Amino acid sequence: MLTRLSRRFQSTRALTVGDRVVISKRVDKSDINEFARLSGDTNPIHSGDRPLVHGIYLAGLVSGVIGTKLPGNGTIVVSKTLRFTNACYAGDLVKIEVEIQTIRKLVRCGFWCRVGDKVVMEGTADVINKRLTKNQTPDNTV
Amino acid sequence: MLTRLSRRFQSTRALTVGDRVVISKRVDKSDINEFARLSGDTNPIHSGDRPLVHGIYLAGLVSGVIGTKLPGNGTIVVSKTLRFTNACYAGDLVKIEVEIQTIRKLVRCGFWCRVGDKVVMEGTADVINKRLTKNQTPDNTV
Repeated sequence: MLTRLSRRFQSTRALTVGDRVVISKRVDKSDINEFARLSGDTNPIHSGDRPLVHGIYLAGLVSGVIGTKLPGNGTIVVSKTLRFTNACYAGDLVKIEVEIQTIRKLVRCGFWCRVGDKVVMEGTADVINKRLTKNQTPDNTV
Repeated sequence: MLTRLSRRFQSTRALTVGDRVVISKRVDKSDINEFARLSGDTNPIHSGDRPLVHGIYLAGLVSGVIGTKLPGNGTIVVSKTLRFTNACYAGDLVKIEVEIQTIRKLVRCGFWCRVGDKVVMEGTADVINKRLTKNQTPDNTV
């Protein structure tokens, strides 16, 4: 899994609006089969010659970025919206991008999963992160 | 995993508003560890003596019900909203309920994950299902 952090994120410890993380992950049939077994989602659209990737597996990869990279360890997700805008198949290289959009009592993260130029999933997550709350300035506590 | 289908769901092939499926699943540490490995979400809140269950793992269990039971095989999820309202820990017995709320061009499913009397996650999924579209009556195609 490749990881690229935005310059702004690398250069400062206190997180701010616009901070961004991008990772890439090629999803293969074994990932799909493991997720099907773990979740019980054995819908036949996720098997056969050209299986669709489970949308919630993509949402899990987004949670992996939110929970370990941006905002990072200790983050608790309060709510999430997900829109599945295009099909994602086994073998696709998925680019997962998370960006800090607003910092108030909750922090809003926007996210996008892309295959080539197509967005296959996008959405937002409202999260709590103690590190962010401690570091936030008066300007972003409204 | 226990499964209970509502009487209405068992007695008719054509699905209608109010149809409901409930399953129960005890989530253990091995489920959490497998999901952490698969998603990359190794946030420390999901480890230790009393690990929190990943919210997206619960969403995956909901997808399992939607994709295999109600509406069932062939269902494609277009969008989903998730609210995480209480903590869910390793060892908890989670009751997962899915209900058909509206049938229009898209079918809206409401869902709830409960531990005892507490809702730990709730939300909605807008889905496409060919079987439902074929069987829907003029009353529910608006």
